[in-house]
Formats: sequence, structure tokens, C-alpha cells
Amino acid sequence: MSAIGQTVWVVPGGWIPASGTGREPEFTSRDELWLLNTGPQPAEIVITVYWQDRAPVGPYELRVEAERVRSVRVNDLIDPEALRLEEPYALVVRSRTPIVVQVARYDTRQAEQTMSWSLAHPTEER
Amino acid sequence: MSAIGQTVWVVPGGWIPASGTGREPEFTSRDELWLLNTGPQPAEIVITVYWQDRAPVGPYELRVEAERVRSVRVNDLIDPEALRLEEPYALVVRSRTPIVVQVARYDTRQAEQTMSWSLAHPTEER
Amino acid sequence: MSAIGQTVWVVPGGWIPASGTGREPEFTSRDELWLLNTGPQPAEIVITVYWQDRAPVGPYELRVEAERVRSVRVNDLIDPEALRLEEPYALVVRSRTPIVVQVARYDTRQAEQTMSWSLAHPTEER
Amino acid sequence: MSAIGQTVWVVPGGWIPASGTGREPEFTSRDELWLLNTGPQPAEIVITVYWQDRAPVGPYELRVEAERVRSVRVNDLIDPEALRLEEPYALVVRSRTPIVVQVARYDTRQAEQTMSWSLAHPTEER
Repeated sequence: MSAIGQTVWVVPGGWIPASGTGREPEFTSRDELWLLNTGPQPAEIVITVYWQDRAPVGPYELRVEAERVRSVRVNDLIDPEALRLEEPYALVVRSRTPIVVQVARYDTRQAEQTMSWSLAHPTEER
Repeated sequence: MSAIGQTVWVVPGGWIPASGTGREPEFTSRDELWLLNTGPQPAEIVITVYWQDRAPVGPYELRVEAERVRSVRVNDLIDPEALRLEEPYALVVRSRTPIVVQVARYDTRQAEQTMSWSLAHPTEER
Repeated sequence: MSAIGQTVWVVPGGWIPASGTGREPEFTSRDELWLLNTGPQPAEIVITVYWQDRAPVGPYELRVEAERVRSVRVNDLIDPEALRLEEPYALVVRSRTPIVVQVARYDTRQAEQTMSWSLAHPTEER
Repeated sequence: MSAIGQTVWVVPGGWIPASGTGREPEFTSRDELWLLNTGPQPAEIVITVYWQDRAPVGPYELRVEAERVRSVRVNDLIDPEALRLEEPYALVVRSRTPIVVQVARYDTRQAEQTMSWSLAHPTEER
């Protein structure tokens, strides 16, 4: 089974709500990434975080094993530093081998959650 | 009328809520796929499901007749085995002939549902 | 100003809720299309509707004037026939000149609406 | 670090709710753009707004500094003129250097907000 997808994925529109309601961890307000590696080797992934008013932060390093999907809450990315809440950010996800990336926002600040998901923008290093 | 679309579609971000509220089946919490076959022949479709901590499961086989759309609740995929609820999963949908694939999440765990839809990621076998 | 976009756009995942709550027409449950024509000539558009259990229906004909966007509620497509409510359908939108197409679902069956939007899938006639 | 993305991005489906509920500015009803510039130079961006019944309006000019993301509420675009509320509009975003663009709708007209996000449609000038 070959690796499906592309090696660079971009999420321009991040923003993590700072408060939430409902049972945790299911209803914790968050942005969440899904990273799918259909290939026969582990995918070594590096994420760079962009901000409005300061230099990019990274690398955040992740591994997705061969033929596995991995779900990562952006709120849980803490090395080299935790992401600031309620500030616009963007993510660039790079992998040595092809992957496919999706992102979801769960916002539970109000009593009834709202949720939206979207594919990331696929591209390749130039 | 020729077949529109591509032969491989990827949904990285699956997760099926285990509970729901409201009238069934309309308000059942679920992930749902739409598969459109605009071509003159039936589309023979095979789905592989990827998980976080075990080997991929499949094939799940489906057919979409010529010039028809088909809506499939992921919760209803049971052969070779039912999908686990409330665990992250990913889908790779392959068809011998071009199709177009969309996915929606309906989450009715709270009193007021939230819903989001997205196209799957289109690609081709390498 | 040249025409931006592509000439075939696909929405696989249509489904129009039959009931709604709240003020009409803003909160009417519906699927809604946006068709953008940035070009210097009117765009002549033809929509074909696909169903689960019967032959495709069409053509639904629309025009979008030069350098204009047009919002169309799918519920309002009635010639050659109105769309069935609460049945899965798909749309193929064709234009002689390039356009860009987006779709939104507004679901107000419950007291608090849920809404989701997505681009249609862009392609070209083969 | 090179500039990732494309130079033309299209959002066909704009519509800004005129009323809202909840704390401002977080819960103000709005459409919001995210513009990511990963490149080493500032991105000079020009937005054109399309309407249903009158000529396009623009240019709206923005700059995104090198290696920064910028979040812009469409409601705040006022030069050359503020956007009309509760009318369908479309946006074409052009940049001299590659960027990546996402859009979100926040609708708080009812007590419980609904939110959806989507990438814009990427293309290139012909």
C-alpha cells in the first residue's frame, strides 16, 4: 500500500477558544488535527505555527505510524511552547512522506457546541 | 454522460459520537458519506478504514448504480466489522471509475445538533 | 477582467430539511448555492440533479450576469420540477465560461440553527 | 522559507448577518478571513468584492507581513466602502506573492452561535 496524499498541508485559520462548557475532554473547546499515513513507513511530521505579531514557532515534531491515523488536539502541542489561546494562528504541516490532513474546530463556550471541519490546503515544497 | 471525478478519495477526520438526542433516524449522531456516480456504468467501490492503534480494516464494498448518488451512514458499515464509536478513524474510498465524495458529521449529543460537511480529498492511485 | 474558476462543479451531498423554525426567509431550512462570474460576459449555467433511486433531472437553467455573484436557494429550483425534500441528491453545475461555486446548508429544524458551507468540487469536462 | 500557496483565492459565498447576541467582539456575527504569508517579504494583497445587482467594488488593500498570519473581519473592510449587511457577496483575493486563505462565518443571531469554516478556492491569474 503506497502513501497517499501530499507532503505539505496548510491551515491558515486557527483560533482556540479559552473557555468551554460540558463534559471534558469530549466537549473541551479546541482545534483538532487528523493526520493520516497510509504508507508502509512511519511519517515524520514537523509543524510550524505562525502568529500575527511575532516570529513563527517550531518545530513541533510528531510521528504517525505506518497505516495509522492520528488525532492531535492543537491545545496539546506544548513543545517548544504551548499555543496561545484566543489568538489567530496558522499551521504548516510538513512530512517527508505523503499524508492527508484535516482540521476541526469545537467551540463549547456556549451551552450548545458548534463544530466545523475542513481539509487543510494541500501543496508541495517548491 | 461521462464519469466525473476521481478514483481515490480520503477522509482523514472521522469520529462517530456514541450518543444522540432527538427523533431517529434523522437526528442520530453519525458520520455520513455521499458518493456520486455520474457515469454510464455502476461504480464498484471499496472502502478501507484506518485506526489509531491497530491495522486497517476492510474491504467494505459498495456499489453505486449508473447516474445515481448514494448516501451511506458510516455507522451502518458492518461487514467485515462495525466501526468503533468515539474513536478517531480515517477512510480511503477507491472506485474503478471516477466518483465524487462528500462527508458530513451530525452531532446530536447535546439538545441542539451541530452539523458540518466537507468534500473528501481527491487524489489518484500512484 | 478575465473569468476565474472552472466550468464544472460538483456537490455530492445535498439534502433539504422539510421543516424549519424562526423567521422566514432568513431561517428557512435550505441548501443554498453561490455562483460567482468574474468574467466580462454572462455565464450560462446548467444544473443536473442526481437522485438515489431514479434518473437524473434537468436541465435547470440559470444565468449569472457579467461581474456578478448570484445566490440561489436549491429549494427554489422548480423548472423542470421541484426538488424532493429530505432525500439525498447531488448537483452537477456546468457553465460555458469559468465560474466558482460554493454551497451552504442551513438547518433550522431545531430551535437553534446549524449551518455549514463548503466549496463545490471543481473539475472540467473530459 | 519560501512563500507557500497561490496568488488568487476566491470566496463565492459571503453573507454578513446584521444582528448578533452574546459578548462583543468575540460573538459578533461576521465573516472572517485568515491570510497566511509564509514568505520572506510582505504580501501586498488586493480584495475585490462582487455583488448581485451592481458593479464590483475595490480595491480593498491589505498587507500581511513576512512570516505572519492576519485575521481580518470582513465587516471591518471600509475603504473604499463598507460592505452591505445581509446581501450575498463574493470576494476575490489577489496577492503578488503566494498566500493561503481561509474564511469563516460566525452567526450569532440566535442565542447559540453556529460557525463554519472553509478554505477559499485557490487559483492563478490566467
